[in-house]
Amino acid sequence: MKYVYLFEEGNKDMKELLGGKGANLAEMTNIGLPVPPGFTITTQVCTHYYQNKETYPPSLEEEITSNIEALEKKMGAQFGNPKNPLLVSVRSGARASMPGMMDTILNLGMNDKVAVGLAEKTSNPRFVYDSYRRFVQMYADVVLGVELEHLLEEKKKKLGAKSDTDLTAADLKQLVDEYKKEVEKNGKKFPEDPLDQLWGAVGAVFSSWNNERAIAYRKMYDIPADWGTAVNIQVMTYGNMGADSGTGVAFTRDPATGENIFYGEYLMNAQGEDVVAGIRTPLPMEKMKTENPQIYQELEKIRKKLESHYKDMLDIEFTIQNDKLWMLQCRVGKRTAFAAMKIAADMIDENLITDKQALLRLDPEQLNHLLQPIFDHNQKEKSLKEGNLLAKGLNAGPGAATGRVVFSAPEAESWAKRGESVILTRIETSPEDIKGMKAAKGILTARGGMTSHAALVARQMGKVCVAGCADLDISYADKRMTVKGKTVKEGDWISLDGTTGEIMDGELETKPSEIIQVLLEKTMDPKESEAFQDYDKIMKAADRYRKLKIRTNADQPDQATNAIAFGAQGIGLCRTEHMFFGEGKIGPMREMILAESEEARRAALDKLLPLQRADFEGLFRAMNGFPVTIRLLDPPLHEFLPHEEKDQKEMAEGLNVHHDKIKSRVRDLHEFNPMLGHRGCRLGISYPEITEMQARAIIEAAVNVTKEGIPVEPEIMVPLISTVTEFEHQETVVRKAAEEVIKENDNIKLKYLVGTMIEIPRAAITADEVAKTAEFFSFGTNDLTQMTMGLSRDDSGKFLGMYQDTGILANDPFQTVDQTGVGELMKICVAKGRAVRPNLKIGICGEHGGDPKSVEFCHRIGQDYVSCSPFRVPIARLAAAQAALR
Amino acid sequence: MKYVYLFEEGNKDMKELLGGKGANLAEMTNIGLPVPPGFTITTQVCTHYYQNKETYPPSLEEEITSNIEALEKKMGAQFGNPKNPLLVSVRSGARASMPGMMDTILNLGMNDKVAVGLAEKTSNPRFVYDSYRRFVQMYADVVLGVELEHLLEEKKKKLGAKSDTDLTAADLKQLVDEYKKEVEKNGKKFPEDPLDQLWGAVGAVFSSWNNERAIAYRKMYDIPADWGTAVNIQVMTYGNMGADSGTGVAFTRDPATGENIFYGEYLMNAQGEDVVAGIRTPLPMEKMKTENPQIYQELEKIRKKLESHYKDMLDIEFTIQNDKLWMLQCRVGKRTAFAAMKIAADMIDENLITDKQALLRLDPEQLNHLLQPIFDHNQKEKSLKEGNLLAKGLNAGPGAATGRVVFSAPEAESWAKRGESVILTRIETSPEDIKGMKAAKGILTARGGMTSHAALVARQMGKVCVAGCADLDISYADKRMTVKGKTVKEGDWISLDGTTGEIMDGELETKPSEIIQVLLEKTMDPKESEAFQDYDKIMKAADRYRKLKIRTNADQPDQATNAIAFGAQGIGLCRTEHMFFGEGKIGPMREMILAESEEARRAALDKLLPLQRADFEGLFRAMNGFPVTIRLLDPPLHEFLPHEEKDQKEMAEGLNVHHDKIKSRVRDLHEFNPMLGHRGCRLGISYPEITEMQARAIIEAAVNVTKEGIPVEPEIMVPLISTVTEFEHQETVVRKAAEEVIKENDNIKLKYLVGTMIEIPRAAITADEVAKTAEFFSFGTNDLTQMTMGLSRDDSGKFLGMYQDTGILANDPFQTVDQTGVGELMKICVAKGRAVRPNLKIGICGEHGGDPKSVEFCHRIGQDYVSCSPFRVPIARLAAAQAALR
Repeated sequence: MKYVYLFEEGNKDMKELLGGKGANLAEMTNIGLPVPPGFTITTQVCTHYYQNKETYPPSLEEEITSNIEALEKKMGAQFGNPKNPLLVSVRSGARASMPGMMDTILNLGMNDKVAVGLAEKTSNPRFVYDSYRRFVQMYADVVLGVELEHLLEEKKKKLGAKSDTDLTAADLKQLVDEYKKEVEKNGKKFPEDPLDQLWGAVGAVFSSWNNERAIAYRKMYDIPADWGTAVNIQVMTYGNMGADSGTGVAFTRDPATGENIFYGEYLMNAQGEDVVAGIRTPLPMEKMKTENPQIYQELEKIRKKLESHYKDMLDIEFTIQNDKLWMLQCRVGKRTAFAAMKIAADMIDENLITDKQALLRLDPEQLNHLLQPIFDHNQKEKSLKEGNLLAKGLNAGPGAATGRVVFSAPEAESWAKRGESVILTRIETSPEDIKGMKAAKGILTARGGMTSHAALVARQMGKVCVAGCADLDISYADKRMTVKGKTVKEGDWISLDGTTGEIMDGELETKPSEIIQVLLEKTMDPKESEAFQDYDKIMKAADRYRKLKIRTNADQPDQATNAIAFGAQGIGLCRTEHMFFGEGKIGPMREMILAESEEARRAALDKLLPLQRADFEGLFRAMNGFPVTIRLLDPPLHEFLPHEEKDQKEMAEGLNVHHDKIKSRVRDLHEFNPMLGHRGCRLGISYPEITEMQARAIIEAAVNVTKEGIPVEPEIMVPLISTVTEFEHQETVVRKAAEEVIKENDNIKLKYLVGTMIEIPRAAITADEVAKTAEFFSFGTNDLTQMTMGLSRDDSGKFLGMYQDTGILANDPFQTVDQTGVGELMKICVAKGRAVRPNLKIGICGEHGGDPKSVEFCHRIGQDYVSCSPFRVPIARLAAAQAALR
Repeated sequence: MKYVYLFEEGNKDMKELLGGKGANLAEMTNIGLPVPPGFTITTQVCTHYYQNKETYPPSLEEEITSNIEALEKKMGAQFGNPKNPLLVSVRSGARASMPGMMDTILNLGMNDKVAVGLAEKTSNPRFVYDSYRRFVQMYADVVLGVELEHLLEEKKKKLGAKSDTDLTAADLKQLVDEYKKEVEKNGKKFPEDPLDQLWGAVGAVFSSWNNERAIAYRKMYDIPADWGTAVNIQVMTYGNMGADSGTGVAFTRDPATGENIFYGEYLMNAQGEDVVAGIRTPLPMEKMKTENPQIYQELEKIRKKLESHYKDMLDIEFTIQNDKLWMLQCRVGKRTAFAAMKIAADMIDENLITDKQALLRLDPEQLNHLLQPIFDHNQKEKSLKEGNLLAKGLNAGPGAATGRVVFSAPEAESWAKRGESVILTRIETSPEDIKGMKAAKGILTARGGMTSHAALVARQMGKVCVAGCADLDISYADKRMTVKGKTVKEGDWISLDGTTGEIMDGELETKPSEIIQVLLEKTMDPKESEAFQDYDKIMKAADRYRKLKIRTNADQPDQATNAIAFGAQGIGLCRTEHMFFGEGKIGPMREMILAESEEARRAALDKLLPLQRADFEGLFRAMNGFPVTIRLLDPPLHEFLPHEEKDQKEMAEGLNVHHDKIKSRVRDLHEFNPMLGHRGCRLGISYPEITEMQARAIIEAAVNVTKEGIPVEPEIMVPLISTVTEFEHQETVVRKAAEEVIKENDNIKLKYLVGTMIEIPRAAITADEVAKTAEFFSFGTNDLTQMTMGLSRDDSGKFLGMYQDTGILANDPFQTVDQTGVGELMKICVAKGRAVRPNLKIGICGEHGGDPKSVEFCHRIGQDYVSCSPFRVPIARLAAAQAALR
């Protein structure tokens, strides 16, 4: 077993063994870049260390000794040799980057004798004793657990020195002595032998793998504890050896915009720490071109070489020591969504990568950012600095919104009508609020999670939404809320950052993204927008590879039109109930609910029929031949009745019935667990005339639009079935109504499907029965997750966070399909369903349809399509392509 | 294909082909009993009839003709021969009894000529024309669809006749003519040819298989439409031919008590219709012994022969025609629970049947009736006749209870304390009401289903309960309710029949059943109670054959003791939360819920610990070595807080906190879908100190009782897990606490298991993961059904009845395990669980554990035990034996 690798012996693909830093140092060494020599102790040693009561493998000592000898030979220097001492850095380096989480030791190899010799040799005693002082302080802190910083402060105070640089070589030498005495007072001893120093440092780095910060970080980023860290031992280089020395950090392209320029900062006569400390202002790379053209040229060559070698944008660190350039680190650079898109698109053009590589490299989730309105970054920072942050909630609908607070949907509508930007602020929202939500720029709620009504509708509408902010104490009666002591009244300006969940006092400017301007607002010529060009190139590439079709969840023609602009190939879920809140529809709907006989119900339904039909016609026209899946009435009826006394009275007057009748109907409809109550197909079975009306409206609309010459492909979906008998009941009602309409229209040729949502575990587990009659399945993974996991999305906010923090759940199952549990049911369902109906069309229309990991899962289990809210269509397109390519 | 069978050609095992009546007529014929000759047209003809547009198989005509000829030959009579006419009855006869649902024709073969001849031959023209009149009227009604009854009434009015018997032969002859004219007026013709008559009648019987009544009946009793009915054609016999004729119905034993006597009624000079019409009072069989000893002797012989042949108690019909006995029907007789038990026990003693046969014959569900207090039958009937029935609810807890109405649990307690019998009447009950429920004789609720809190607790306590009676309009404030206009005030007497769901005004006497007097009250010597002897014999036989162990759901020592008396072999579910409502416990529990820090929570838990420990000690002692499964805290915390303003204020005073604090905590704890909310192990994970306290209380109790020399086998059960990580979390907390206690007690030897409830679909589907650490599974089929079917037990009452009526569901899934859906998950769970842990102990502790069909299912999928409420233990024992024997 080999535990130590010289940089010459590794390469960039050995990250598991050498960690990220070690692997990249090895790679740079081997492609001939100037890397200070060194070697890496592998992650296997770390694993061994923890599995064997913090001891090392026996052969490690010899390996380290011989590698140090190799370094000594290469450098013509020796550990502890005062005339030509070897000084090294000891740094951690895990497989995944964990910046700042673990310990580092610099200047290792210093001792009293070496300091004397080196001072002589460099004629720079101050530099030497400064390095020595830093080393002893770092070593005592990290390895020996003795804090020495306070002695430095005392020394400076005593000598009236403002900064470290005011201390002389002699001061520093004395400080080193005082440091060592303090260490001894603490019962420890600073080792003078560099090899002893080395073993201490290596042990400290391994130990730091399990410090609290590192553990917390790993949990947060889901990094397994058994990966372990490597340790990199590398010859020291110094950027603070004078005017011909320096240090810098750069990106091979602009990480914010993606522009193909050398982007970064450097500082002469400085160490990395100085740049970080911000004492002196670093210069842009551009400046080096004229200030230090030779090094710049060298770096520019290295930049090109690295990019053509790694085929990606990189983040590098370098040191200049006496005019000699050394590379200390390189890794793939983080970037904004815009930069990611541009770099991917550019690199295809530059023939650096293929379109497949470009697709696999992008994070689908980031596409979100490209579509959302944005705050001006500086203005927002300024506002935060001025203390305008009111509170933080869940970042439920990304983007930026600013407007005046209103506390009710009707008010949101009327304010918006007179041209005001409003933020609709509610304890929680319900379907009654839909029109108000549509009128608002942003939606803010005090209750509910990432898949609450507010969040769900907001994302479908592409609205900014901050949900479940428990700090809001809202009083509808007083039209005001208090937030951590501050009072916000109706009409006050606030701003929501739906990407971060921040709620800010006051007005901030926003603007739509370029892609929205091109695709939806059509206020920008596509040719003028580079961002759009890049987006378009990537999306077209995604469409070439993906196997899944992408549909959208939409119930209004404008949503459908938007979704098509984003690339949707059909509607996967039209929630008909949303339509009942439209103009003139809620009245007859309520009449229907209050009806005490089938006859009275039918009378109310007769009023709804033409309105629904018109809605469907609009959708069919917008979709222009794409399939449209329409779900029959789903929510419990009480959702259509007002719950506030005042609204009930108003309704009573409107319908000319007694207030008590409405009150008593609301009470009758109350349920302990409405999620598991009288809803979905259970309504259609209780009142077949509702299903009949809806089926008739759908088919009549399809007939009318067909007659206009527009192709139509309606798919009628029965919600919430648990048993095949429920489906059969509803299917019979639907087909009877449909065939009647077709007959009334001279047997017009019209293809329509009748299928069902799979959202109850029983339906999934008995899919072989259901598929005998159902022509398609659509997974309603919101409810399927709730029931399979016994978890209410509206209530689980109280503990889901804790569940994720403690590792009980890896993900929020309402965001990403729980593949082990819910996914297993889905697999069983697909297998059983296709066993009896091989061509069974299978999709998903839960919120998960827009989640990249879930899209990949849907691809893997053989679904035909995914359906998501319009603004997530591009995400789903990219995720589907990645799934197909993986 | 043979479509017609002479009675000589069939036997009792041919029910599928010949129907129940036909098969038994054939059987009686073949064992030499006097059966009027005849033949049966098979059910296959019925099936053919409906599959071929109501036509017959071509060969049928010839078969019928030749069978009629055979009858003619046997009787020396011919169809249409005036001198010696053949007259037959045409009756339906399905596989399962469908009494009165289908059509019958009597006296077929009559026509004008036959009537003349027969009148001469019998010298009884009135009898002949009466029969003819009846035939024409019946035929016109059933076959021709012409109603004639009104002509009879007109005739009687015209002649001033009070009853049919006042009409002379001449009157009747005239009426027949008028009948025929009326038929012709309706465009139909009465056929004079007996063969034509026969075909008409056969067609009418087959058609009646699909009349509305029959379809509704089949739905109700789950009889498949494709079974079809047979048609029996049999020579007529007449019980109304004079004083030497008669008719009777009898049971071979007393169907009410099971006593081995000839029990029945007969009436001389009468037809079956006369007995049914109730015009004359029939005589008991006993009377025949002296009145007609010869026939009685013959019947007594037949009775013996039938019982020894059928090996069961039978229900028979007979006719005496001119001193000649004819058997018209025999079938297995319906009986009460007491009779069933006695007959089974007696027949074993009589060596008529084996114990296995006896076990398989009994209906486990009926055992319920043997255990419940009972009303005096006559007194109850009288009360009902007097109009005292207030309303009907769900028969949720069988038995009889009478008492004075109170509307709150505290009142129930205080009234009971001063010696009053009370009926606790609530809109619905909650765990707060437990003590009041215990104090009450019966429980009545306006809301909730068969598995509502009231029903569940009542059955566990063995209390009479009528639940979900929507007719009750209860006002707590006024301490009164109105029921269909009647007002019942606090203190008024009412009586509940929990076996029927009837609620009666006024007081009715009740008494405990003998079995209860023997087993639980010990107020009766077992030797003195025949009922107990029979019960005991059957139960011991059941225990010899069953494979499943039977446990009980109990959380109080008295419940446990009762269950042991009923034969329980352990506790399968101790709900610890019920204990928190006991004396002195609700206070600290509420303190714990209001606590704002772990420290404060622990302080409250410290108070609960000794109280819980004492509870567990009591249980362990009562169970004396039987295993005891204890479930950790399960319900959402809000259940422990009062919801009424008044009670909240009282609690605030008691705990010396501000009322607002309690109000706000109640608000915090409110959930949209509490079933899927913050409960079960989610509580124990949020507050591990609760689990810790409970584990400590259990193990400390086990240690203490072990030290008393009583063996203890605790099984600690984690509720509501969805993921294995949840279980692991709680298991770690439990084992840590347990090992601490064991260590504190000198490492005392104590075996305990840690397992989990399987009540969330995800847990079932990932059983292979869960079983790696869980030592036992217990199916919580109440919740598993709710989540697998997406059905709230508390809310689904609104449509579950309709679902069963329309055949969407065959059973109430909360009573009988839904084997196709929920059962499939259970099967997957057993298979996956045993795959990783072959000796995994698997039980069930949902309400289904006491349901016979579900018990059989549990046996079939290989469970180790079922657990049910104490009073259902005998039912489960019998059901388990049946499962093993089948």
